[in-house]
Amino acid sequence: MDILAVGSVAFDSVETPFGKAEEVLGGSAAYFSASASYFADVGIVAVVGEDFPDEHIGTLKGRGIDTRGLKKVKGKTFRWRGRYDYDLNQAHTLETQMNVFSDFKPMIPEDYREAPFVFLANIDPELQMEVLTQVRKPRLVACDTMNFWIEGKPGFLRKLLKKVELLVINEAEVRELAGEPGLVKAAKKVLEYGPKTLIVKRGEYGAVMFNGRSIFSAPAYPLEDIFDPTGAGDSFAGGLIGYLANTNDLSDGNIRKAIIFGSVMASFNVEAFSLRRLISLTADDIESRYGEFKRLTHFEDI
Amino acid sequence: MDILAVGSVAFDSVETPFGKAEEVLGGSAAYFSASASYFADVGIVAVVGEDFPDEHIGTLKGRGIDTRGLKKVKGKTFRWRGRYDYDLNQAHTLETQMNVFSDFKPMIPEDYREAPFVFLANIDPELQMEVLTQVRKPRLVACDTMNFWIEGKPGFLRKLLKKVELLVINEAEVRELAGEPGLVKAAKKVLEYGPKTLIVKRGEYGAVMFNGRSIFSAPAYPLEDIFDPTGAGDSFAGGLIGYLANTNDLSDGNIRKAIIFGSVMASFNVEAFSLRRLISLTADDIESRYGEFKRLTHFEDI
Repeated sequence: MDILAVGSVAFDSVETPFGKAEEVLGGSAAYFSASASYFADVGIVAVVGEDFPDEHIGTLKGRGIDTRGLKKVKGKTFRWRGRYDYDLNQAHTLETQMNVFSDFKPMIPEDYREAPFVFLANIDPELQMEVLTQVRKPRLVACDTMNFWIEGKPGFLRKLLKKVELLVINEAEVRELAGEPGLVKAAKKVLEYGPKTLIVKRGEYGAVMFNGRSIFSAPAYPLEDIFDPTGAGDSFAGGLIGYLANTNDLSDGNIRKAIIFGSVMASFNVEAFSLRRLISLTADDIESRYGEFKRLTHFEDI
Repeated sequence: MDILAVGSVAFDSVETPFGKAEEVLGGSAAYFSASASYFADVGIVAVVGEDFPDEHIGTLKGRGIDTRGLKKVKGKTFRWRGRYDYDLNQAHTLETQMNVFSDFKPMIPEDYREAPFVFLANIDPELQMEVLTQVRKPRLVACDTMNFWIEGKPGFLRKLLKKVELLVINEAEVRELAGEPGLVKAAKKVLEYGPKTLIVKRGEYGAVMFNGRSIFSAPAYPLEDIFDPTGAGDSFAGGLIGYLANTNDLSDGNIRKAIIFGSVMASFNVEAFSLRRLISLTADDIESRYGEFKRLTHFEDI
């Protein structure tokens, strides 16, 4: 196993200007794993309820994902209901039912513990820390978080960040975490908290990487139809960590390529509800969109 | 003369989180010309009042700008007062005094009329059209506009766009002009109105070019301190058109480079109030920041 992914698996109900979906497969760990599965072997750790159909587990297995860490327990699966208006960068949460997720204590199966790459999706930083006590010397620990934890558990989060190499969060979260409105200054401050690399997700404006030595700016793919942005950030992280695990190269240059593969995967994900597009890609689809990213950004020698 | 620039010359009073400036030299034609002057010979057409000091005309002349088309008339100079909060993408207009600008009728001096490049800064589309009746077969006509004209003079604007090769406007204006929330679709529609190339300004998120055959996405330069965003769009247009006039090459590849030079000039401009930074650059400053843009976007072979 190359990558251990810990996060949520959920039922999402989503409404966008282009349609709606009811109780479809979602959750940060599901999006991440499906995306990363094109590049590396992924094991997932999450919890679902008795209402979670085997068919969904089959979908993940179909992508070669190791689901032995996906526990089914008494109760109902985590549910999220949200709406996007024309500003697709902004999710409006209508309802969150934690259900079985509120008692989630990640137990990492024995043979997941050697995974060299660990992705801690956006969950309680205490639980993210708990995962790190169970794993053995991973080469790279990456994590995501959100305003809820930045405000609610700042102490735990700061402790966690000391153990994280790669932080992947939204632009507003960087500013909030640093208490600094300017992105460049905020990024500098966040790098002092521990991570060697900070990748800032900017939705339809792409992503920026800071590592204290260089800055890399990647655009988002200009899609005609962004059908549903749910899971874009986790698909991005999946392509990113997946490519890093595949190449086992953490140089500045390779992280840049990994960010583009992350952007490629996010761009596919938003073309459909749930994991529909993310589970039906070919290696050619991915390579060809990577090529389009080159043409999208190239301004010398064309 | 390589470029004819028609627009405003004004007194700006600006407040940002980093300081304030009172009645300093500003206006779209001033920012554009100062920026373009590093690349090509520019002639400016605008109007000022009796209160406009010769010192400011000297500043423009000091950059080699031909100011014979800058008319001084009875009355007061156009004044704009604005404020920026921490979201520096958003200007809050506090006061606009049109003064002599309300009777502005652009009269293009005889030896400006042969200029191969024409930039129509954001003024009334009727006046922009009026300029085009006076010039002789320019190689490229570029223009800017704003929501005020999109809403107030849609008919004149659409007529103008038939005669414009290069449209340089903000993202929200593209959506409004096309009546379409998705940027890619909106851009397609705007290209049907006439322009061969549309360049969308996105403030601190950079710029995107659409020409019906390819899309190019350029980041903004990640500055630690954005001191004052006033004039960023016109400085961008100045570097862009300046480079195109300098190279006289309108190929896709060269327009991409020109967009980067525009981004370079905008990044310098926002480092200080008024034209202060924009008039004190060296060729080395510009080349070196261009190099930084390459490093900022490069993800293959580094």
